[in-house]
Parts: sequence; C-alpha cells; structure tokens
Amino acid sequence: MSDHTPQSAVTVLGLGPMGRALAGAFLDAGLRTTVWNRTPGKGRELAERGAVVAVSAEEAVAASELTVICVVNYDASDAILRREEVTAALKGRTLVNLSADIPDRSRSTADWASGHGIRYLDGAIMTPTTTIGTPASVFLYSGPAGLHQEHRPVLDALNGTHTHLGEDIGRAAAYDIALLDLFWTAMAGFTHALALARAEGISARELAPFAQGIGAILPPLFEQSAGEVDNGSYSGEGNPLTSAVSTMAHVVHASEAHGIDASLMRAAESTARRAIGLGHGDDGLTRMAEVLGRR
Amino acid sequence: MSDHTPQSAVTVLGLGPMGRALAGAFLDAGLRTTVWNRTPGKGRELAERGAVVAVSAEEAVAASELTVICVVNYDASDAILRREEVTAALKGRTLVNLSADIPDRSRSTADWASGHGIRYLDGAIMTPTTTIGTPASVFLYSGPAGLHQEHRPVLDALNGTHTHLGEDIGRAAAYDIALLDLFWTAMAGFTHALALARAEGISARELAPFAQGIGAILPPLFEQSAGEVDNGSYSGEGNPLTSAVSTMAHVVHASEAHGIDASLMRAAESTARRAIGLGHGDDGLTRMAEVLGRR
Ligand SMILES: NC(=O)c1ccc[n+]([C@@H]2O[C@H](COP(=O)([O-])OP(=O)(O)OC[C@H]3O[C@@H](n4cnc5c(N)ncnc54)[C@H](OP(=O)(O)O)[C@@H]3O)[C@@H](O)[C@H]2O)c1
Ligand SMILES: NC(=O)c1ccc[n+]([C@@H]2O[C@H](COP(=O)([O-])OP(=O)(O)OC[C@H]3O[C@@H](n4cnc5c(N)ncnc54)[C@H](OP(=O)(O)O)[C@@H]3O)[C@@H](O)[C@H]2O)c1
Repeated sequence: MSDHTPQSAVTVLGLGPMGRALAGAFLDAGLRTTVWNRTPGKGRELAERGAVVAVSAEEAVAASELTVICVVNYDASDAILRREEVTAALKGRTLVNLSADIPDRSRSTADWASGHGIRYLDGAIMTPTTTIGTPASVFLYSGPAGLHQEHRPVLDALNGTHTHLGEDIGRAAAYDIALLDLFWTAMAGFTHALALARAEGISARELAPFAQGIGAILPPLFEQSAGEVDNGSYSGEGNPLTSAVSTMAHVVHASEAHGIDASLMRAAESTARRAIGLGHGDDGLTRMAEVLGRR
Repeated sequence: MSDHTPQSAVTVLGLGPMGRALAGAFLDAGLRTTVWNRTPGKGRELAERGAVVAVSAEEAVAASELTVICVVNYDASDAILRREEVTAALKGRTLVNLSADIPDRSRSTADWASGHGIRYLDGAIMTPTTTIGTPASVFLYSGPAGLHQEHRPVLDALNGTHTHLGEDIGRAAAYDIALLDLFWTAMAGFTHALALARAEGISARELAPFAQGIGAILPPLFEQSAGEVDNGSYSGEGNPLTSAVSTMAHVVHASEAHGIDASLMRAAESTARRAIGLGHGDDGLTRMAEVLGRR
C-alpha cells in the first residue's frame, strides 16, 4: 500500500443507476469519492453529497488508488479505459470492473491490464441498486485473491456480501451470466404472467401476492433441483415432465387466444418436449438442464 | 347437508403425485378417504394407510358427499366424469376439480355439472406435492361461495391457505394459468442457467446458493413491478430496458457459444427490443407486460 491512503479514497467511473448507487454508498461510508461519467451532469446530486466530479476519466483515475468502473458492458468500459491517458493514469493502481459481460471480456481485460501494469480485479453485482449500501447487496469477485483482500476495506463500504470466487478472472462473469439468465427469464415470465392475467381480468396487484407465493417456493426448488442435476437423478417423482408440459401448453394456448405472444413459454415447452421425445417424460424438469447441455 | 356426514368423508379421483398427496393428507386428518385411479395399483400405499380403493370411479364417487378430482387436465377429468354411470353417481353431490387447465374448461365443466344436478367448485393448487398437508400449501377456488363454505371443513384438512377468488367459475383457472406462466418460465430459466453454468465449469451446487439469492430478490420486485404496471408508470429509474437487454444479449451469446439453445432468452430479448423499438428504452422491464398485452 502506498501513502495515498487507499483505504479512504475511491474513484467511480460510470454514473448510470448502478454507478450512482455505488458512489452514494462510498460517500455514505465517509470515503473521499471521485466520480466521472461520459455524459456530464449525472454527478450533480453526488457532488451535493460531497463527491468530487472529475472533468476527465484520467483525472478521476488519478485521484484514487482504487477505481471501480460500472458501465453498461465491456464495449463501454473499453471505450473509457483503453484511451492512452486513462491507461497511463491507471498504471500501478487497481481497477475493479463491476460492469456485466461475458467471461471472455474479463479475460481480455486482464491481458490488457497486465500489459499496462494495472492491477485488475473483475466483479459483478447480483442485486438491484436499492440494495447497494445495505446488507442485502451481493457482490462477486474473481482474480488475484491478495488484491481482493487488499481492497476489501474500501469495497466493504458498499455493505452486503462480498464473495471471492477464485483466481480465474472470468469466474465472476461466468456466475453473473448464469444468474442473469435465471433473473431475466424469471422477470420476463412475470411480465408475461401480468399480461396474461390482465387479459383474464386480473390486475397486477391482485396477482402479486400469489406471484410472491410462487417466488417463495422457488429457492427451495432451486436447491433440490441443483442436487438432482449434479447427481444425475433428474427425479420427476413429484412432478413429471409430461405433467409440466401439459400446463405449459395451457399457458401457450390461453396467451395466444388473447393475442399475446407466447414465444417465451413456447421455448420452454419445446425443450421439455425434446426431453420427453428423448425418453425422459417420467423425469422432472431438471432433465432440461441435461438435454440443453448435450453436445 | 345430508346424513352422510360429509364432514368426515372424501373421495379422491386421480392418483398421480398430486392426487396421492391429497389423499394422504385427508387420511392423516382422519377422514374416511376413498380413492380411484384409471390405472390400477397407484392406491396401494394409500390402502395400507387406511384408504378405501374403489374398483370404479362411480363406486368411488358414491362413497362420499365430496369428490375431489386431480388429474393431468380437463381432457382427463372429462374422460373420467362424463361417463353415464359416474355422472349419475355425482348427482346431488359436490365435485371439486383441482386439475389444471384453461378457464374455458372450468366454464364448460360448470355447464355440464349444472345440467346434471352436480354441485361444482373449481380449484387449483399452487404449491408442490411436498407442501400438501402442511401450512405451506396454497389452494385457489372459484364458484359458488356457499358451496366452498360448506366444504371448508373437509378441504381445510389439506392444511395451508385456501382462497376463494369469486363466483366466476373460471377465476381460479385464470389465476392458475398466470401463476404457472411465471412458475414454469422461472424454472425453465433456472434449468437453462444450470446448463450454462456447467458449460462454464460451475456445478449446480456451486450456483445454487446464488440462485437462491436471486430467488430471494424476486418477490419484492414482483410487488414493485405490479404497482408500476397497474399505475402505468413502468419506471426504469433503477434499471432501464436498454441496460437489461444488453445483459440478455450476453446470455444468448454465451449460451450459443457453448452450443446451448438460447431460444428462451431470445424470446425475452425480442420482447424487450420490441419495447425499445416502440420508444420505451428508458422504461423498466415492466413495460414488457404492456407491450405484450397490446392488441
Ligand atoms: N441497475 C441494476 O439494477 C443493476 C444490477 C446489477 C448489475 N448491474 C450492472 O451494472 C452495470 C451498470 O448498470 P446501470 O444500472 O448503471 O445502467 P446501464 O444503462 O447498464 O449503464 C449506464 C452507464 O454506462 C455508460 N455507457 C454506456 N455506453 C457507454 C459508452 N459507449 N462509453 C462510455 N460509457 C458508456 C453510461 O454513460 P452515459 O451516461 O454517458 O450514457 C452510464 O454511465 C451494467 O453492467 C448492469 O448490468 C445493474
Ligand atoms: N405435482 C405437482 O407438484 C403439482 C402442483 C400443483 C398442481 N398440480 C396439478 O395437479 C394435477 C395432477 O398432477 P399430478 O402431479 O398428480 O400428475 P399428472 O401427471 O399431471 O396427472 C396424473 C394423473 O392424471 C391421470 N390421467 C392422465 N390422463 C388420463 C386420462 N386420459 N384419463 C384418466 N386419467 C388420466 C393419471 O392416471 P393414470 O395413472 O391412469 O395415468 C394420474 O391419475 C395436474 O393438473 C397438475 O398440473 C400438480
């Protein structure tokens, strides 16, 4: 650690909803927080709360030992970081990229970083902006464990759970992408359910308590299903694919009768029918994971 | 009520995983339980626990004032119920159909029932077999409120939450279908996430705790989203569609790079892009419910 007192300063690049939430939590924790965003003006409220708004990304990076970048994807973070002035300013400092993207982009960023003497940690955020700074936030990291340890005092200012998944730099992105797969599919399913419910004369608020009930049964099913997939049992004892596919077909039928596109459920039904066609009709839904993964 | 002491006897038609769970819970509650299934042999374990295994559906129906049928769908329940002997045996008695199907099938069953002097209540079960007989089970009903009240003493033997949604006979099926839309889409998303994770070298058990974390953030998001949909705000303040669609595209890309079919996420992404194309890129994911429902 240098005499820059890295434990008390941090730079945040990117002031979308998530970048602003991160910077806000750092400020609340009393850290000297420098911010920058491509489009100016997004840091105004943070400035009122004490943030230093830098006029350039290189100036922002130079203000702290640790820079956290959180933009839409790695095309965006590359556009910011891989400019000569910014790359030079990062030399000898630590960069944590909390933007979402595929694991390959983390790997290429690690190559670029090591080629320029930049200490690099990859990460992902698994919870909404409203959780940042609260115990409900969830952060994943991968890359050099020592680097993660070194910067934990600053990162912990974000509150919540911080898990280091291993030295393989792409590991956080790999978890992130699988979890986003689950998250967006579930949320898309919910918006579809709301559209179908409305067509049936049920308001979103009327459906919501029962949808929350469905939400509550998912976590234990995830746990149980994970066991079935890892041990290859795919048990359909309580709910065989043949039964599941029947109700999937009802959803497709009812949606399309109301003129609501059902390609989301059609995709799920198609994988289920593929598994049944392969002879797995008595298995549970978890068989779909195996069938999807077959080469 | 007749002198058959309806509060102490019940018939269960259909002994798939759910029918067996229902009959088991009735037995545990001390009810005289008569069971029947198209394919013989499924009632053996229930018989050991005290159930009467009827040799025909008509004999089963004649044994109790209340018959609960729970088979794969209404094609199956029609095949059982709409035989002359069974229809005749049901006359003056109460039928509760807990099989899943679209609302129109409940309506046509109500017409058939009233044409044959059968008292009819429709219903749906929203939780897995393992919850039946426990406080975690969730049952929905629709149809004559008085009929529901009359048979609550028997139905309550199943434990859990029993909600009467109104006199419109199709209402339970309408809720059911919207909730199954959410449930199967979310579960299909989870199996897809497991396939993607495995391709990235992450086991199901490694992913599961984080997937449970995603499961935990869904219920509050459902509540918040329902409000946005009903009041038409579709706020993307914390997470605009343009940001969501970027990570959806990552999931598609990473899946297909591993040879994993991504039509489920492609369907979600396509609806999101349609909403963006209609000018709603700054809105949140809830805008998808409105766009899907447009005529
Ligand atoms: N919001 C959430 O709930 C949430 C939850 C978990 C993870 N995340 C992840 O966090 C990251 C940031 O998300 P967000 O919610 O803040 O919104 P976002 O819309 O994903 O990202 C907006 C940020 O990206 C910047 N940006 C976009 N294209 C750029 C480019 N070509 N060059 C430079 N900057 C560019 C924007 O700058 P301008 O203002 O100049 O356009 C803005 O700072 C994303 O990867 C997201 O997946 C978000
Ligand atoms: N399992 C769950 O976790 C769960 C949860 C909530 C709701 N539900 C709903 O409960 C209902 C029953 O589900 P389940 O889990 O028991 O398994 P299922 O596979 O959906 O249904 C099996 C039952 O349907 C009968 N059946 C199928 N086709 C028939 C036909 N043409 N004629 C007569 N009977 C026929 C079967 O008889 P045979 O043995 O003769 O084939 C068996 O009794 C379904 O509507 C399901 O959606 C299930």
